[in-house]
Amino acid sequence: MNAHPATAVAPGGAPACEDCLRRSWLVARLGAQFDFARRRGRDLPLVFDLSDERLIAAVAGAVGTEVKREYDGFDAGAAAERCLAAGVQTVCRCDPAYPARLARAPGAPAVLHVVGGRERLGALLAADCVSIVGARRGSAYGLEVARSLGRGLGAAGLTVISGMALGIDSAAHAGVLEVQGATIAVLPAGAERPYPASKRALYRRIVASGVAVSELPPGGESRRWGFPARNRIIAGVSAMTVVVEAGERSGSLITAAVAEDLGRLLGAVPGRVTSGLSTGTNELLARGARVVRGPADVLDALFGAGVRAVPERGAGEPVRAELRDLLDAIGAGCDTLGALVGSGRAVEPTLTALAELELVGHIGREAGGRYVVRVPG
Amino acid sequence: MNAHPATAVAPGGAPACEDCLRRSWLVARLGAQFDFARRRGRDLPLVFDLSDERLIAAVAGAVGTEVKREYDGFDAGAAAERCLAAGVQTVCRCDPAYPARLARAPGAPAVLHVVGGRERLGALLAADCVSIVGARRGSAYGLEVARSLGRGLGAAGLTVISGMALGIDSAAHAGVLEVQGATIAVLPAGAERPYPASKRALYRRIVASGVAVSELPPGGESRRWGFPARNRIIAGVSAMTVVVEAGERSGSLITAAVAEDLGRLLGAVPGRVTSGLSTGTNELLARGARVVRGPADVLDALFGAGVRAVPERGAGEPVRAELRDLLDAIGAGCDTLGALVGSGRAVEPTLTALAELELVGHIGREAGGRYVVRVPG
Repeated sequence: MNAHPATAVAPGGAPACEDCLRRSWLVARLGAQFDFARRRGRDLPLVFDLSDERLIAAVAGAVGTEVKREYDGFDAGAAAERCLAAGVQTVCRCDPAYPARLARAPGAPAVLHVVGGRERLGALLAADCVSIVGARRGSAYGLEVARSLGRGLGAAGLTVISGMALGIDSAAHAGVLEVQGATIAVLPAGAERPYPASKRALYRRIVASGVAVSELPPGGESRRWGFPARNRIIAGVSAMTVVVEAGERSGSLITAAVAEDLGRLLGAVPGRVTSGLSTGTNELLARGARVVRGPADVLDALFGAGVRAVPERGAGEPVRAELRDLLDAIGAGCDTLGALVGSGRAVEPTLTALAELELVGHIGREAGGRYVVRVPG
Repeated sequence: MNAHPATAVAPGGAPACEDCLRRSWLVARLGAQFDFARRRGRDLPLVFDLSDERLIAAVAGAVGTEVKREYDGFDAGAAAERCLAAGVQTVCRCDPAYPARLARAPGAPAVLHVVGGRERLGALLAADCVSIVGARRGSAYGLEVARSLGRGLGAAGLTVISGMALGIDSAAHAGVLEVQGATIAVLPAGAERPYPASKRALYRRIVASGVAVSELPPGGESRRWGFPARNRIIAGVSAMTVVVEAGERSGSLITAAVAEDLGRLLGAVPGRVTSGLSTGTNELLARGARVVRGPADVLDALFGAGVRAVPERGAGEPVRAELRDLLDAIGAGCDTLGALVGSGRAVEPTLTALAELELVGHIGREAGGRYVVRVPG
């Protein structure tokens, strides 16, 4: 797709250009013609690689004729009005606000439909972005790890991207929200609609402080092709993708394959070789994905071992006097629970205080259980 | 240590040379002077790196004088007689029967003490050798995987080395024995003595078809230094070391470090990041160890993906008529349980037959659950 001038087609609405809106409509219109969801691994829907003309030409018979007619008569102003009416803002590919990392991905969506605000999307994407994805039927283990990753990365000031699907995705979003972190849900249907519907409450919490994003215009239905299509966006906006649990045919493996193809960092959480839900993740590890045991491994991958992101949230919060002592001790190298307790502190209150410090991002934990001061509050 | 001519010092006994026997005695005598077990990772006992003269010189005071006197008066003939009386055979480093792979390892033992036979040791080491090691307090998960690895590698004709310790080690040996496979126990005390004593029955089964090996002469006591010392032998004789479960301070990590230092293949079984018993193994994976999900990953590492070792045992056994059909189907590409069942077979008998075929080594299972014919019985 060639860049073309951004044009405000709906007075009072978000800027969006006619070509991008038309392309967006065409992809949504034709995507459902292909049975993409049956494809696995690196086979992403062809629809993203073909020009408008070739796409239309590929549709045979009466449907093709109808699509051609609709395409030629496309009313961008009306499309922009529909977004406005649904409370959805747009960012088209030729808009400077379009996510730079996603723009570099082949077949990136022509238009991102946003609930929660264009500006907020920009702010969230300006931070380091990591996607956490995984199986819908995650195990208790997987859900625990996803939530813990969400908490840790959210507290570290990163933006966590996921698909708000049942299971791992939702646990990751929930973890981020627990620490008032930044999170983006990329949805397989219209951005204005919680999908799945059972995640309505989570959706509301996400768009209250973060954003929901979709490739589809308002009213867009989730179809089979929408899931792998959505997954390419998740990987496309993220510097690193982490798969927490995935069976052999999990859609998360598509996200992982896209991340690899884009040359992004890919991590996977190890799991039992006897668990079907770890088949996909252990396979990713066998093929070279980074081992992710917790937030520290993600931060190491992004920033290099030993370097830690300084959280934007919480950094200004005053540290209570009783926590100051712990922070000082950790800063002075007394950095394991054993050492802290060994130096005369009682176990229970120390554990509680450490959890509190970790939660707000003042300290982090490294492999081996060593605590490290992130913000010398 | 320089090579010196093998000399039969005990008439009727196994050939062993005086210098090697004396060196072996000295290491056993002095090893206990050092607190080696406290060292971790790549720090192996210094005792293996120093010459006899420097070792003796390093021992101060009255003990040093006593050791020097004993060393000068060492009676190799009597030492060989003690081995003979204990039913222990010896292979010294300058003996052509000394394991070639171990001989290339720095600080290799001067003498291997063997129960089960010198010739059998040679035959076992002539096959591809893989060590399976892990935590004494292995979880049910770890024990299951260790046993399954032992079964699979034993059935594939490999020799499995371990330390007969409680937990993972013993489970691995037991798995090998279940399929009448080849196994070697490397013990931290004298080879004639089951260690730990509770593994007496397993020891008897091991030496009935395999061998028990020790660096220590008969009567040698297990001391702290003996465990890391033993671990270097396990890694030293193996083309690949697989750690099944290991806590952060597990002795298995010493075995792993030695394997790495020797440039041998190193594998680890992934486990839950929330399990302390997988801390060490997941750390090995993070540092580049190969992901071992089952026997197929070990065979792939040793022989290259897709190539399979042809089992020596079981290869000549006739395949029952009712199993022939399954073998043929798998050979023809109907290679997953789903496909086999989908083609009209009942689940239960198919599972039973597959387990039987797998047990005797006629088929193996690859990542993804695909069966592969190993011996076209």
